[in-house]
Amino acid sequence: MNFLELVRKRYSLRKYAPRPVGRAALERCIEAARLAPSACNSQPWRFIVVESTELRERLAETAFSGIYKMNQFACRAPVLVVMIRETSGYAARLGGTLRGVPYSLIDLGIAGEHFALQAAEEGLGTCWLGWFNERAVKNILGLNRRTRVDILFSVGHPEEGADLPEKKRKAAAEMCEYR
Amino acid sequence: MNFLELVRKRYSLRKYAPRPVGRAALERCIEAARLAPSACNSQPWRFIVVESTELRERLAETAFSGIYKMNQFACRAPVLVVMIRETSGYAARLGGTLRGVPYSLIDLGIAGEHFALQAAEEGLGTCWLGWFNERAVKNILGLNRRTRVDILFSVGHPEEGADLPEKKRKAAAEMCEYR
Repeated sequence: MNFLELVRKRYSLRKYAPRPVGRAALERCIEAARLAPSACNSQPWRFIVVESTELRERLAETAFSGIYKMNQFACRAPVLVVMIRETSGYAARLGGTLRGVPYSLIDLGIAGEHFALQAAEEGLGTCWLGWFNERAVKNILGLNRRTRVDILFSVGHPEEGADLPEKKRKAAAEMCEYR
Repeated sequence: MNFLELVRKRYSLRKYAPRPVGRAALERCIEAARLAPSACNSQPWRFIVVESTELRERLAETAFSGIYKMNQFACRAPVLVVMIRETSGYAARLGGTLRGVPYSLIDLGIAGEHFALQAAEEGLGTCWLGWFNERAVKNILGLNRRTRVDILFSVGHPEEGADLPEKKRKAAAEMCEYR
């Protein structure tokens, strides 16, 4: 599978089979994220992979309740991955402040997508989730109040019969020009 | 080449051969970026691929001068790609405001890394550049003052004899735990 094929294969999976996910596959996904580039090589990320049924159920129930319930599909995923944004190193922070761009968020995007693309290569589906009760997530995981949990991923095998949805994107001419 | 091999192959190239880059390869890099996921499918990005020698030289000279000269290596890249951050759609913007996370930056990271990984697959090298004179870039390209040019990429073939550098990253156990 070449990279463009992998990119086309990755999509936001919202229908998960109950089948568990192997630890080795998860480790390869984390390895792909670990090797991601970042501003000044700050690597401003940390992952918590929640596999145990009891913890995952408690986490999902509170993370996706109330105003966050549009993401309740993630309660059926056999794995939830919590992505924490750490503070960048000094040089990246200084540069980011001078430029007015918090690079650590771009870095999070890069590392998270490495994770998601490796998952797609493993035959797994993922969904990037930004809309959840962060406070509840931190409470349940015993994280410091000031920890920044910006992203969760739901991870699992696609439900049987799940179709690869068509990608709806702007045309190339709308998002790129050559000069 | 599987995805982890591609991830290992991608590195920040700072020594470019003068050899030009084919348009078809650039189009495939843009295609990979175009298909990237984003919050609420906002696709908050736009690319300007600067290939023409005259414009590229003017751009590079001013973008990487003065306090930005640590990135002057990029003046020797045969292509510069300007990545513009557009405003996200309403839902992503509202969610981002409520959560305190500007998702468009995460989205930029995702799409930019799709670009960089496809370039690696093409045998090209890239470097993510966040440290440049944004005002000068906008002036030279005739962009509106309020346009957000967060990222430039230098793109080209590696200089002959360029070695794949070793990746220095935190150990897996330092950036991930399983629960």
